[in-house]
Amino acid sequence: MLLIRAAADEFSRQGFHGTSLSRICKAAEISMGALTFHFSSKAELADAVVETGLSPVRALVEHVAQRQAPPLERAVGLAMELTRLLEADPLVRCAVRLSRERTGGSAWPALWRPLVSSLASQAHESGQLDVGALPDDVTLLIELLVRGSEVSLQGADTSAAAGHDGSVARLQRSWRLVLNGIAPAAH
Amino acid sequence: MLLIRAAADEFSRQGFHGTSLSRICKAAEISMGALTFHFSSKAELADAVVETGLSPVRALVEHVAQRQAPPLERAVGLAMELTRLLEADPLVRCAVRLSRERTGGSAWPALWRPLVSSLASQAHESGQLDVGALPDDVTLLIELLVRGSEVSLQGADTSAAAGHDGSVARLQRSWRLVLNGIAPAAH
Repeated sequence: MLLIRAAADEFSRQGFHGTSLSRICKAAEISMGALTFHFSSKAELADAVVETGLSPVRALVEHVAQRQAPPLERAVGLAMELTRLLEADPLVRCAVRLSRERTGGSAWPALWRPLVSSLASQAHESGQLDVGALPDDVTLLIELLVRGSEVSLQGADTSAAAGHDGSVARLQRSWRLVLNGIAPAAH
Repeated sequence: MLLIRAAADEFSRQGFHGTSLSRICKAAEISMGALTFHFSSKAELADAVVETGLSPVRALVEHVAQRQAPPLERAVGLAMELTRLLEADPLVRCAVRLSRERTGGSAWPALWRPLVSSLASQAHESGQLDVGALPDDVTLLIELLVRGSEVSLQGADTSAAAGHDGSVARLQRSWRLVLNGIAPAAH
């Protein structure tokens, strides 16, 4: 786990292409032989960082899928908790960034978009949404807000991102506007 | 300009750290001597890509600042046009990505956030916003939506991103929800 964290730190600083295995060895204070015993290539190590970093995301999605609460609250709660994970854990941030650099970023939203979409449909069916708010559009809006928070948190390195706090609070303020709309009530 | 486009293409594929000047020479079909005559380092070339790629963004911001239209429409129009630029021009996408990798991404939102903020304040003063919608929160919401679109468009390479169309239409659908709110009207 120390090795994975050290690798994540290097990937965050230099990106996948700019990171060498020898730098990771130095940072983790292990020999190249010890590293390659576990991971035969940089790609394999990056895959392990992504796998480890996305595992709390998977656990969160499973948790929210089983929660008992109105669907819209669960969808928004998921968006908030995803942002909280990105904000709190440099390893999650690194995994999301690596998956974006290496696969165009589809792996990360693919983990939670289906649940948001299903909850938006349930919210529509149970009358939690205005008749003009289509579930697909609500899903898209939540996705844009989560990904906007994601990129605001992804600085050039993890230390810069760690200094950037309050993303969950920012998302909450935005969500309040989305619920009630920003146009004057008489509109 | 061919050199700048070739460099942007390499930076988009490999990131700043993973790109070498020799690869750029090969892609642009020029000699290393010709390249270093213009740019003495990779950082200098990346700065030129950022400068060139962000210049249509600057022009757009100036244009919107001078437009005659209600402030909220101008703010949203700006968000749509920013997304359109990202979608249409690989050089703009590359400049935004490079500025994010190298400086934590503050240069790009700093270009347009002040105008969005000023327009949100004007919209508030002229009664275009609901009394519960504070200008700072509206600014933040627009920023999250633009940056969510940005990251959705920034795949691992430009060819993947170019295949991802319809971002402006997606943002328009989201914006319609934001205007009227997603909670039932009786809420």
